[in-house]
Amino acid sequence: MPNIPEPYTLTATEALRLIEAGDLTSADWFRSCLERIDAREPEVMAWATLNEQALSEVEARDRHGKGPSIPVGAKDIIDVAGLPTMMGTDFHDPTPVTREGGSVSLMREAGCVFLGKTVSTELGHRAPGPTRNPHSPRHTPGGSSSGSAAAVGDMMVPLCLGTQTSGSVIRPAAYCGVIGYKPTYNDFDKSGILPNGPSMDTLGILARSIEDVSLLRGILLEEPAGPVDPLDLTSLRFALITAEPWDQADSETQTLVSGLADGLAQKGATRIDAGIDDVVARLIKLHDTISGYEFRRSIAFERIHYLDKLSAALREGRLATGHSVSNAEYHAAIQEVARLRVRLAEAFEGVDILVLPSAPSAALERLDYTGPAIFNSAWSLSGNPALTLPLFKSTSSGLPIGCQFIGGYAQDANLLAATKAIFKGFTT
Amino acid sequence: MPNIPEPYTLTATEALRLIEAGDLTSADWFRSCLERIDAREPEVMAWATLNEQALSEVEARDRHGKGPSIPVGAKDIIDVAGLPTMMGTDFHDPTPVTREGGSVSLMREAGCVFLGKTVSTELGHRAPGPTRNPHSPRHTPGGSSSGSAAAVGDMMVPLCLGTQTSGSVIRPAAYCGVIGYKPTYNDFDKSGILPNGPSMDTLGILARSIEDVSLLRGILLEEPAGPVDPLDLTSLRFALITAEPWDQADSETQTLVSGLADGLAQKGATRIDAGIDDVVARLIKLHDTISGYEFRRSIAFERIHYLDKLSAALREGRLATGHSVSNAEYHAAIQEVARLRVRLAEAFEGVDILVLPSAPSAALERLDYTGPAIFNSAWSLSGNPALTLPLFKSTSSGLPIGCQFIGGYAQDANLLAATKAIFKGFTT
Repeated sequence: MPNIPEPYTLTATEALRLIEAGDLTSADWFRSCLERIDAREPEVMAWATLNEQALSEVEARDRHGKGPSIPVGAKDIIDVAGLPTMMGTDFHDPTPVTREGGSVSLMREAGCVFLGKTVSTELGHRAPGPTRNPHSPRHTPGGSSSGSAAAVGDMMVPLCLGTQTSGSVIRPAAYCGVIGYKPTYNDFDKSGILPNGPSMDTLGILARSIEDVSLLRGILLEEPAGPVDPLDLTSLRFALITAEPWDQADSETQTLVSGLADGLAQKGATRIDAGIDDVVARLIKLHDTISGYEFRRSIAFERIHYLDKLSAALREGRLATGHSVSNAEYHAAIQEVARLRVRLAEAFEGVDILVLPSAPSAALERLDYTGPAIFNSAWSLSGNPALTLPLFKSTSSGLPIGCQFIGGYAQDANLLAATKAIFKGFTT
Repeated sequence: MPNIPEPYTLTATEALRLIEAGDLTSADWFRSCLERIDAREPEVMAWATLNEQALSEVEARDRHGKGPSIPVGAKDIIDVAGLPTMMGTDFHDPTPVTREGGSVSLMREAGCVFLGKTVSTELGHRAPGPTRNPHSPRHTPGGSSSGSAAAVGDMMVPLCLGTQTSGSVIRPAAYCGVIGYKPTYNDFDKSGILPNGPSMDTLGILARSIEDVSLLRGILLEEPAGPVDPLDLTSLRFALITAEPWDQADSETQTLVSGLADGLAQKGATRIDAGIDDVVARLIKLHDTISGYEFRRSIAFERIHYLDKLSAALREGRLATGHSVSNAEYHAAIQEVARLRVRLAEAFEGVDILVLPSAPSAALERLDYTGPAIFNSAWSLSGNPALTLPLFKSTSSGLPIGCQFIGGYAQDANLLAATKAIFKGFTT
């Protein structure tokens, strides 16, 4: 065998290439990930439940000639057969579920074996679980896909499922220094996943390479995923979004993101004014109304039967907002979003990607708050695909800072091609 | 006690009025419904599971002074704590579920006690369960909310939950001679319900009066539901939709529905050409594409793990359609629907309701097919509210024939007011 790196450090695409070449076995890959988890989980606490059967599942697949197995994790609001779904609470039924999410079954069919369920904040909302930032245990990993971002960032597993209603994929990915991808709304199936704000809930991917994002995307869409061809940056048309909420980013983040925009222009990309500042501001406001109203309904079971077990953050936050919104206000907001989506579709005729911060700063030095979603909620509600790249590091804390890219509705392939070129062109 | 009718024959609103006046107890109401079920269930077969605890739940509520209890049923793709969810299959886990749908919890909180789960077709799709039409055991009850429509039509229970992706509330309601109401898309919460085609899946109501529809609507929206004021028919603007698929209705249905339109005009309502014939035709086509694509994903668990247990109707029908649609075609269809919804919103500025058949004919004399959804699928996809009234009877079979009314998006209150006036004005 050639001198290969520790398998747990590999992306899925890299490991699969080694397996295909006969230089790695699935079982060794899994063992390496499991050892990494053993070593690091006491500090990172990324997992809600570990699948004790993972290695035997891999060995059984090998015995039956089923092809390579891929280690993955799923946020603990997603049903995976054989494991409980606790949703970041202590009162849900700990019996392993039998019917699992459609996306989970598709992944299983394609060779994914679940190492376990990753920590979610309470009901996918704000109140944090025990997970810490893998780059510094005093810092938040972000949320609500806290464990998925931390597990991928800590190289316990190459790929995890997360979900986003406000900023629950992009923000933790940025804080943990990984790629977070929220596809176009409804691109991936959501059956067997706790609804939160169904009009914007999106299943997403945490990964360490664009190739891995594309691999899992192909599995979830049941469509072939070839290698991603990086876009020629001289043909890229981009817009830097510096209107609200730009001012809420710290100066380091502003400097880094503007610097990237300058870098893109230097490499021949065309900078455009997208003319959608007012759209973004409205979407952020409407997100509050719609997500509050829908969240209040989605968790009616919990608030009716277990209100005293719910956190103050939930009761006094989005739930209180939800109770203040009437059905008429909700539908008016939904109809306004439909009109704003038309505006965005028109804007994206002239631009490939929007460039903006993934979060106002690097991860905060606290564990009781997962950070603001102010740079993400507009795009959750608009349904446009979003992807964060771990392009920067904070000079003060050394922690990762992400840059967020927004693509046109259903233009996910173009977003992946553009971000692959940017990732290649702007990391050393 | 005054001479009151058999309690099972009452609507919920009527029974609640008697309870408030001290002329009926909740327990007697429930006992009457349970006796009706005992007597009729062997012929109608509306129930997948009966809740053996229903009467004790009512008595416990009475002991604790919890106010009147309302007997209800839920289609067996909706999770109700304490009862299994079999989804019209024989392979799902028969363990009672613990987390239930948000809408179910809201109903429980408002005093609803579930008599049981009503029969769904296989996975809410086409392959029928055992239910028969309560008006004739050789005729289909329609589907997929077969048991809900039959149970309400047979007066086993005044109110049931159903769901509609194509025509699964409106068609069985029409066949079984009851009111079926599919609200504006996303009006009622869908957590804890098997997704089928999430972009159009809608939780709906089967009932025997508009007051009862309004009562349950108020419960599900957590907003006060006063009595429905019937619209003054002289202020009603309506359009009879006689373009495609009008020709697919039999001549009896065409005559009855056109006759109603003439009747409305005679009572002073204004007949309008809505100018949306092309929109309806496109929505029907796009429904095929989108529902197929989404259904294929929503039931990935079943088709991957239990393909040989699924019916040919499912495998060769919507599932085959789904496999033929690419992600790009799916998103193109979704974006076309967004544009068509704008056209419909413009049309509804000039009209209150559309009038059209609920189904091409009365219930078919067969039990292996639940009938076509051709008159319903456009409105499931557009998201407009739909309501069918049991206005007619077939002269040949004596079976009910419904008339369908479509309201403007989020104009549900107006649709209820209009249909209340029509129900009052056109039944004897």
